[in-house]
Amino acid sequence: MAGGSDARRVTIVEVGPRDGLQNEPTPLPIDTRVRFIEALAGAGLSRIETTAFVHPKWVPQMADAEEVAARLPRGGGAVRFSALVPNRKGLERALGAGVREVAVVASATESFNRNNLDASLDETLREIEAVAREAGSASVMVRAYLSVAFVCPYEGPVDPARAAALAERLAGAGASEIALSDTIGAATPSDVSRLLERVLPRVPAERIALHLHDTRGTALANVLRGLDLGIGVFDSSAGGLGGCPYAPGAAGNLATEDLVYMLDGMGIGTGVSLAGVLSASALLEAAIGRPLPGRVFRAGGAPRPPSP
Amino acid sequence: MAGGSDARRVTIVEVGPRDGLQNEPTPLPIDTRVRFIEALAGAGLSRIETTAFVHPKWVPQMADAEEVAARLPRGGGAVRFSALVPNRKGLERALGAGVREVAVVASATESFNRNNLDASLDETLREIEAVAREAGSASVMVRAYLSVAFVCPYEGPVDPARAAALAERLAGAGASEIALSDTIGAATPSDVSRLLERVLPRVPAERIALHLHDTRGTALANVLRGLDLGIGVFDSSAGGLGGCPYAPGAAGNLATEDLVYMLDGMGIGTGVSLAGVLSASALLEAAIGRPLPGRVFRAGGAPRPPSP
Repeated sequence: MAGGSDARRVTIVEVGPRDGLQNEPTPLPIDTRVRFIEALAGAGLSRIETTAFVHPKWVPQMADAEEVAARLPRGGGAVRFSALVPNRKGLERALGAGVREVAVVASATESFNRNNLDASLDETLREIEAVAREAGSASVMVRAYLSVAFVCPYEGPVDPARAAALAERLAGAGASEIALSDTIGAATPSDVSRLLERVLPRVPAERIALHLHDTRGTALANVLRGLDLGIGVFDSSAGGLGGCPYAPGAAGNLATEDLVYMLDGMGIGTGVSLAGVLSASALLEAAIGRPLPGRVFRAGGAPRPPSP
Repeated sequence: MAGGSDARRVTIVEVGPRDGLQNEPTPLPIDTRVRFIEALAGAGLSRIETTAFVHPKWVPQMADAEEVAARLPRGGGAVRFSALVPNRKGLERALGAGVREVAVVASATESFNRNNLDASLDETLREIEAVAREAGSASVMVRAYLSVAFVCPYEGPVDPARAAALAERLAGAGASEIALSDTIGAATPSDVSRLLERVLPRVPAERIALHLHDTRGTALANVLRGLDLGIGVFDSSAGGLGGCPYAPGAAGNLATEDLVYMLDGMGIGTGVSLAGVLSASALLEAAIGRPLPGRVFRAGGAPRPPSP
């Protein structure tokens, strides 16, 4: 793999409108959020996580999820829009809003689950099973995030066998895709290998996505290792949105531009226009009024030889 | 490789004091430059490019190279200090200052060589041959950078066969190590594969280093591909110094901390203390008065689980 041709196809799941924007200190107006999603769809992103059906008291950034869903660009169903739902109540709202794909979250450690989701891991897993059953009855697809699948901020490195067992349980519960998530951006390629070696015998590569953060600069190296091991779905966020807004310059999600730039250079098709994503990020940066950390965005795009 | 054990050993060549600082708009005082080098040596970096013997009229940032050389920390020769020399005149100054290892530069394209070194590529190569002969007579080691070995800002993608032929010529001229340089930070892992496939049959992996910039976020992915193909020497710069100071937040050289963090996580020994490099970067950031772009530096280091 390393020495041969790299070409094949990859699907990018754009998570900026949800995972990115939910960390912004000031909620963005709904018009801006919708324009951002439209720009992303216009850039050729075929899967976009658009919002979360959570209580606005807890996550004011995701308020008006119904309105976001209602205003999503139509057009032949070329784009798969999804929304995060924390529980059955969220699912009911999502179903009512006509959402056809939902995402659920569980953590690989008890501590993170309690701190982040305010429930025991077992409670969360049972709720996910109930959500998946109801979603299945409505023919709505379910994606499951496994948070802190590599490293937990409370417990340190996560046992790959434990994370793999949880991935298998989420798949068994009815999640059609499991997004193994490096929530705090601490994984290295060896962590990716170790976890995938445990996961892939239990859940096929076609059902696994990698959700990487670039906090410590390792996200694209982790993508490369994932590609080498047969993974074909990667999450990213336009401009690298999703860092901690209180740590100036700290990176968030892997930037969509950085991912597209690398895959373009490797001859791996994504259907995404780098220039289109850069435009979406520019719109977003103007709205949040803070520099986005994505490398390609900050560099102004791909190198352009001067005209002769 | 991808699925197996990653462990082995890597040598890091710290280039911050030269490649990093030479791009700073305001030259740093010599005391700061020496303290920076001392901090890097204290962090366990075993190879450090310390300065350049160039005319201070052209590169005022590297003024007083003799004094830098005279003030390098002694101590049993555990650290290999080197200095860049553009030509025989620079070599003579370096030899007079007691430097035991020098670096020379040629470009993979005619346009970049003329724009960057103000000479034809052939003139530069002949000068390098002369420098290498004189250095050899003095038993001084020579490292050669091949700039824009992957992508040229004037000519676009560089033909790997052409770059490989130049690498071979530099090796034949007496350079003990060739640093294949992604000067504008545009390479992807496929570029690394393509070039190394051409270079390694001509120059053995033991004599090849990768000098990567992180302008578009691909540096660590390129390191990973280099590791997979047997490369064991990588250049980096503390804090990711070396970006364009006029593009706020744009990345420069691969940050030493990011490289050490990834290699630590992969069980690959470097002898370098991450905490030590972070201290050197903190000293540097205070001196330049501008945020350094390195990801691990900005994130505040490795994740530390809270004390129980």
